Amino acid sequence: MKTTKILLPEDKIPRQWYNIIPDLAGAMAPVIHPGTNQPVTPDDLLPLFPMPLIEQEVSTQRWIDIPDEVREILALWRPSPVFRAHRLEKVLGTPAKIYYKYEGVSPAGSHKPNTAIPQAYYNKVFGTKRIASETGAGQWGSSIALACQMFGLECTVYMVKVSFTQKPYRKSMMQLWGAEVIPSPSNLTNAGRGILEKDPESNGSLGIAISEAVEDAVTHEDTRYSLGSVLNHVCMHQTVIGLEAKEQMALVGDYPDVVIGCHGGGSNFAGLAFPFVADKANGKDIRILAMEPISCPTLTKGVYNFDYGDTAKMAPISKMYTLGHDFMPPGIHAGGLRYHGAAPLVSQLVHEGVVEAEAVGQVECFEAAVQFSRSEGIIPAPESSHAIRGAINEAMRAKEEGKEKTILFNLSGHGHVDMAAYDAYFAGKLENYEYPSETISESLKNLPDVKL
Amino acid sequence: MKTTKILLPEDKIPRQWYNIIPDLAGAMAPVIHPGTNQPVTPDDLLPLFPMPLIEQEVSTQRWIDIPDEVREILALWRPSPVFRAHRLEKVLGTPAKIYYKYEGVSPAGSHKPNTAIPQAYYNKVFGTKRIASETGAGQWGSSIALACQMFGLECTVYMVKVSFTQKPYRKSMMQLWGAEVIPSPSNLTNAGRGILEKDPESNGSLGIAISEAVEDAVTHEDTRYSLGSVLNHVCMHQTVIGLEAKEQMALVGDYPDVVIGCHGGGSNFAGLAFPFVADKANGKDIRILAMEPISCPTLTKGVYNFDYGDTAKMAPISKMYTLGHDFMPPGIHAGGLRYHGAAPLVSQLVHEGVVEAEAVGQVECFEAAVQFSRSEGIIPAPESSHAIRGAINEAMRAKEEGKEKTILFNLSGHGHVDMAAYDAYFAGKLENYEYPSETISESLKNLPDVKL
Repeated sequence: MKTTKILLPEDKIPRQWYNIIPDLAGAMAPVIHPGTNQPVTPDDLLPLFPMPLIEQEVSTQRWIDIPDEVREILALWRPSPVFRAHRLEKVLGTPAKIYYKYEGVSPAGSHKPNTAIPQAYYNKVFGTKRIASETGAGQWGSSIALACQMFGLECTVYMVKVSFTQKPYRKSMMQLWGAEVIPSPSNLTNAGRGILEKDPESNGSLGIAISEAVEDAVTHEDTRYSLGSVLNHVCMHQTVIGLEAKEQMALVGDYPDVVIGCHGGGSNFAGLAFPFVADKANGKDIRILAMEPISCPTLTKGVYNFDYGDTAKMAPISKMYTLGHDFMPPGIHAGGLRYHGAAPLVSQLVHEGVVEAEAVGQVECFEAAVQFSRSEGIIPAPESSHAIRGAINEAMRAKEEGKEKTILFNLSGHGHVDMAAYDAYFAGKLENYEYPSETISESLKNLPDVKL
Repeated sequence: MKTTKILLPEDKIPRQWYNIIPDLAGAMAPVIHPGTNQPVTPDDLLPLFPMPLIEQEVSTQRWIDIPDEVREILALWRPSPVFRAHRLEKVLGTPAKIYYKYEGVSPAGSHKPNTAIPQAYYNKVFGTKRIASETGAGQWGSSIALACQMFGLECTVYMVKVSFTQKPYRKSMMQLWGAEVIPSPSNLTNAGRGILEKDPESNGSLGIAISEAVEDAVTHEDTRYSLGSVLNHVCMHQTVIGLEAKEQMALVGDYPDVVIGCHGGGSNFAGLAFPFVADKANGKDIRILAMEPISCPTLTKGVYNFDYGDTAKMAPISKMYTLGHDFMPPGIHAGGLRYHGAAPLVSQLVHEGVVEAEAVGQVECFEAAVQFSRSEGIIPAPESSHAIRGAINEAMRAKEEGKEKTILFNLSGHGHVDMAAYDAYFAGKLENYEYPSETISESLKNLPDVKL
């Protein structure tokens, strides 16, 4: 029988995270304080994050030990499997070999707990009593709720109101794991009250929810903030994905020609890709491809510039690809990946030409997800469908060119809680929406003026 | 680091199913034709099932080979992991060791594809073009849809109307896997039309949906019927669960003192338990415990008698524990496991005293599921929560008695698609409903009069 799943035993959960910073070609731009317009210091960040995470954020050490307490919780689902997509290859009639790393095996159903667990751990060690965070549809919120529950921390999640109302399942998961879930904008913060005064019926947005969570954290002594993507330490925590995947590919004597991940804030992409970026820097001939939606085309149509992390301009300013902190993806967009910015680390790699980016329409992504489900069984999260689209495109190109090629992509989560998006696709309610260049130009007018 | 997950490599997917029939103490009662009141012959069953499955249903061979084509699809998720519940043990402060076999890793999120895949395979080999089946909340419907998709069969699922309307996620999963989903009662069958004439607003029931699917199958040449539980061959297909679990326990040098599964129709219970029943027959000192809801207490308050498999009296008559084919569990019951009967094999083992049965209230079950999620992470399906309740009860008894004890239970599925039931629990909307004995006596008046 052909090998379908490549498994690793529990003792192969990586013992160290890979920190890509020392291996970057250029130096990273500093992070800027939104109040002073000066580079932030660790002390500036202390109201937001516990010191161990601040240290990781700026560390130039290549390998950082994963505490046993973290590995013990990761063992609830890690190492995650790598699958060879025999059946999809056959349906496509491609000479390419398609592998995928499957992160949907975590209790929350996505890769997000890979960083939620260590974040909760370091907060616990540091003495934090409560974590405040935000969530859109709930992938991140459910993961941080799970992580807080595992380490006995309280957890408050500001959930974008339209999702709170319309996507109740992940809200229920957060509550089951003991978190307090608050529809955002709320009356609990100045940021929320400000929005509600202008528009009492506001549906909220991720940017607003971030502002609320940040304010909650900085105004409460024992509370810290937690972010599920974008930051350096978050990307680093996710590298367990790529480190395991490399070992799994080696077990079957294979190595990818192209590595593909979907890209929103950048964490699942970074998690799979960074360990392969290291190989590329050492001369390996490998393509590394980030797939994003055309309705939120940060890496392909944004600018590489300093910008705020949130709408209310309370979060630190980073140099990254951005569509402008005011940018709002259209309501029609069903596939997640809605952040206006991108992880500074991924941005720098795109800017340096190490990582390629491509934008795809949601209709093609759901098409790919359906083809995938019907051959491989697993129902992908809408976000992950962007990576599948990328992989199928590569496989079809290999077929046209009559070339063998090894493709590895990250299936970052399952879609059991996102079936309404599939319904909308089958009902023909989804369209591809490509943002007009003028709209993007407009939101790019408000970038901060950082002078170093 | 302590072992959390016990994994098996892919080549350890069992190569044979275990058929318990030759190992039963007594002979099995015959299955009776509902029309003739005589024992059914294989030919009688041919309009319903393909011959290879009929042969399996009556086989007295102890081991039956699993075709490679089936093992290749099972490899998409099997062997499933066995977990040691270290964190739950610690929360309970019990000296007991708790292990659980986790079947939620399948693409459909439950154990049901273990039999859906071989059923679709044998239908394909036999020349069936379409499978008709029924589903309540959709666990089985989604599994047979997946299986038909894997083997290129058409699939029609009659879904109990109230679930079709109120539980849209598994309906969407079925459609994604290419099945036609029809709210039952429907106008497509005599059985459905009969119900709709009396009550156009009928919400449907599992018994009615079975009648519709059976009628669809027997009235269409290339169509066969498929059942997700109860039958001998279904229980046998599920034995991969217990066969793997035994090997996994042996890997850590352990063996259970008690094996626990939830019980509705009997298939997940049989799947874990039967390979251990074999050991018990060979002298092993082991308890085997079926957990069922007090709102549908088939094994604990039913009678061991002949009864129809469905409401419309079209399905074969089997000797089993039954509450009467007219029995309807209360609407308030959120936890699945609603079938009026039980697998004849499980029934016989209960009758012979080999298997114990216990009924529990849904409030205690959700309590157990919450405790489990908050320690082990995984969110259980409401059905599976009955097994967790049983395991926690055993662990607490071990604590009181100060005894070491090894507990193994089957976590038959995840609850990501069942979050509404958790919401109802947290909102205090769930009550324990114990059927009044008079109601059960009433529904037991209509048992068929079988004379052999």
